[in-house]
Amino acid sequence: MRAILSVSDKTGLVEFARGLEARGVEIISTGGTFKTLREAGVAVRYVSEITGFPEILGGRVKTLHPAVHGGILAQRSEAHLAELAAQGITPIDLVVVNLYPFRQTVAKADVTLEDAVENIDIGGPSMIRGAAKNFASVTVVVDPADYDAVLERLGSDDRAFRQRLAAKAFGHTAAYDAAITAYLGEPAELPAERTLELVRVQSLRYGENPHQQAALYREGSSRGAVLDAEVLQGKAMSFNNYTDADAAWNLCLEFEAPTCVGVKHANPCAVGTGSSLEEAWTRAYAADPVSIFGGIVAFNRELDEATALAIKDVFLEVILAPAYSEAALAVLGKKKNLRLLRTAQAPRPALDYRRIGGGFVVQQADTLGVEGIERRIVTQRAPTEQEWQDLLFAWRVVKHVKSNAIALAKGGATTGIGVGQVNRIWATQQAIEHAGERAHGSALASDAFFPFDDVVRTAAAAGITALIQPGGSLRDEDSIRAADELGLTMIFTGVRHFRH
Amino acid sequence: MRAILSVSDKTGLVEFARGLEARGVEIISTGGTFKTLREAGVAVRYVSEITGFPEILGGRVKTLHPAVHGGILAQRSEAHLAELAAQGITPIDLVVVNLYPFRQTVAKADVTLEDAVENIDIGGPSMIRGAAKNFASVTVVVDPADYDAVLERLGSDDRAFRQRLAAKAFGHTAAYDAAITAYLGEPAELPAERTLELVRVQSLRYGENPHQQAALYREGSSRGAVLDAEVLQGKAMSFNNYTDADAAWNLCLEFEAPTCVGVKHANPCAVGTGSSLEEAWTRAYAADPVSIFGGIVAFNRELDEATALAIKDVFLEVILAPAYSEAALAVLGKKKNLRLLRTAQAPRPALDYRRIGGGFVVQQADTLGVEGIERRIVTQRAPTEQEWQDLLFAWRVVKHVKSNAIALAKGGATTGIGVGQVNRIWATQQAIEHAGERAHGSALASDAFFPFDDVVRTAAAAGITALIQPGGSLRDEDSIRAADELGLTMIFTGVRHFRH
Repeated sequence: MRAILSVSDKTGLVEFARGLEARGVEIISTGGTFKTLREAGVAVRYVSEITGFPEILGGRVKTLHPAVHGGILAQRSEAHLAELAAQGITPIDLVVVNLYPFRQTVAKADVTLEDAVENIDIGGPSMIRGAAKNFASVTVVVDPADYDAVLERLGSDDRAFRQRLAAKAFGHTAAYDAAITAYLGEPAELPAERTLELVRVQSLRYGENPHQQAALYREGSSRGAVLDAEVLQGKAMSFNNYTDADAAWNLCLEFEAPTCVGVKHANPCAVGTGSSLEEAWTRAYAADPVSIFGGIVAFNRELDEATALAIKDVFLEVILAPAYSEAALAVLGKKKNLRLLRTAQAPRPALDYRRIGGGFVVQQADTLGVEGIERRIVTQRAPTEQEWQDLLFAWRVVKHVKSNAIALAKGGATTGIGVGQVNRIWATQQAIEHAGERAHGSALASDAFFPFDDVVRTAAAAGITALIQPGGSLRDEDSIRAADELGLTMIFTGVRHFRH
Repeated sequence: MRAILSVSDKTGLVEFARGLEARGVEIISTGGTFKTLREAGVAVRYVSEITGFPEILGGRVKTLHPAVHGGILAQRSEAHLAELAAQGITPIDLVVVNLYPFRQTVAKADVTLEDAVENIDIGGPSMIRGAAKNFASVTVVVDPADYDAVLERLGSDDRAFRQRLAAKAFGHTAAYDAAITAYLGEPAELPAERTLELVRVQSLRYGENPHQQAALYREGSSRGAVLDAEVLQGKAMSFNNYTDADAAWNLCLEFEAPTCVGVKHANPCAVGTGSSLEEAWTRAYAADPVSIFGGIVAFNRELDEATALAIKDVFLEVILAPAYSEAALAVLGKKKNLRLLRTAQAPRPALDYRRIGGGFVVQQADTLGVEGIERRIVTQRAPTEQEWQDLLFAWRVVKHVKSNAIALAKGGATTGIGVGQVNRIWATQQAIEHAGERAHGSALASDAFFPFDDVVRTAAAAGITALIQPGGSLRDEDSIRAADELGLTMIFTGVRHFRH
């Protein structure tokens, strides 16, 4: 029995090779694997002895030879074995090859394109793929975790086991090539074919519910502000913590001034800005002291002691901030279960994926900020300076609320949020109910146009004075007329922000 | 200049080869490509002439030879060229190889595992990968659409172009191996590495909003009830149509009796069942005649003429059903813009993906149906037969409503739905408001436990008589006591159905 060993990950290599040797397996090898085995005193032959062909081009061509690939690819039929014999080729029964993770190559700070390219393995994947194709006769191993199982089965004929190893092997080469594509390419965003390489970062205790298994995956070598956040203390992050924290952080990024965002069930429940982070927190907390209980709170700058002291008695699941002062950590460190995350520097993803049966709908992420909207005053009355501030504040928030969405804001904080409603007037009524007295003097933002004038009339009745919406309904004139009649001011943005 | 051509997709092959010939390029080929070119009168040499080695093992080993791979992989440095010369190898400057889509191989009805495996190409990917690695010197082409651009640049040195082709080439091999893995493997659901092969089914007009580009992608060779639905008539499906239709269909699958589901903004707005589909529709429509306007409606059996006549005057965006009678099609055919979808037979996906910055959280889909729940009566009073029916109906619905979710139902239809709320009591109040008078005598389902007894008390005040919820709160006793005190019956399921 003949085996070829050529591995990047040398975990357990020597023990495994000794196990093979003890069972009388002839070992062929190359490069660093050869050296490691020889130094460990394992009997091993260099591959060029088998091919009768020198290693050329600085190692670029070592194993790409019929003596290797014929040995790997031959069926164990009389005809194929006779052909091998005629060419003086010995069958290879076991191929143990793994590849240095390409994404680790290119993650190094000083890597040049030339270095990266030199690290692309050609011979290794060819052997892996050939052996995996021929799993009817050949065993392929890409993962040291499988060494023991392979030794146990040596000499027996467990075809189902070899097929599982083959599937894993093709997964290994697919991921390798997906990483190279991502590195070399500036591919179209929505191309005809897209291969996503997902790498598990950690298993999660469960999914949205305890009966669903779940895990966190990185896409290739991408980074994420929350995915790569440092968990400074607290319990392990849950599935729902990750989605909520991501939603909270994305909304935080809309604001330049000190800002605090509270999220529950992937929807913002309260947002506040202020001249300090403490003021931002105080305003957000006042905006909805009920829903914030057990929520996720994100801050867009270093969390200081004053804010930590203000927040410490509220029960929260997760706090996110780009940094924490020592004093703040000392205050919050006493709450052992509270998860404190230091967000990572990372770009926002360009694409958004939604699962549907059989695949995904994929879209460019909605990265259009307030700077990208029209600010067309469609009413007789123009907004006051304060109304402008409240309108743009509410607009920033409503973009992050699930549709149909209505956000009310006043003086640097939300006053009411209508979430996920199946029609627009219900979202409006809900936002107003939650705002109570504070609806009076608030600005209202709507993620899509008003189909009728009922939103304007309901808003006016609650004391709302200013409205911002995309416009574009057949009945825009009805809403404008109602606003003028009732003394309200209204802005059309020309942009919709549905989010589901 | 030497080129090697070996393609599965022969589109434009002969014209391209003639273009190469006219520019003095020496063409090497194998198999079917060789035959096609020779028959077209193009000057071409068989690869074994170059390798000096016979094609063995029924074609399994043809090009896996140093004469080919040395020619492809050599840098155009003096040292490498001298090594080639010493071995009598000529450099290869252009590699034109593409692979027969593996998912098409295995999609054939009568394909055996042996056929599929025999179709796994080993030599082709090795040449593609080698040439792509060496893009500094070599041009690799996997897509006939690039032939013209390659001919135009022949003799010039456009390295950026070659790099783009190389990235595309690794994308081609990555997708190929991902398809093989999916076929061979029964991989763990949440493995350490997962490569997703996404194949664009169609570009969409835009995403959730007009400023976002979007497309529909299939995952490998998966099928989906909506993704593969036949669009019998109407405008093209939009991004939001796809997500809404998928949500509507998944809820429909919870019911065996004739059922109609209405969806707006990815949340159910009305659900009805009945002894006929027409009755199901009539009940669903009565449940919320406002929100259904412009909505998506799904039916779980053949849509007949009576239902078509009942539905035809309501403005809807999409109707889904597994079949339509001729008479129903005649009725609905008059509404030219209405999208009519005939859903495909397809399994529900095993995994659910949620995008976060840098990657995804991935979980097992929530496929737990009513048969999987506990039905523990925790109150003194047990449900009547009618209450049991209403409770289980509401439970089926609430699983598909975004959290926090409350669903009310009575007599085979929803009466009120509270959607996406940041706290539970708001969801309860909202469901009751929408139900109005119909709350009286309804059953209430909650996707998660009651943290306080306020839900029970609010429900009782509205005339609700029966409640179903997971249980598991520290204050379950408060809720049970309130229910007993107010004469309500309550069921614990032991299962939560968060959905965001």
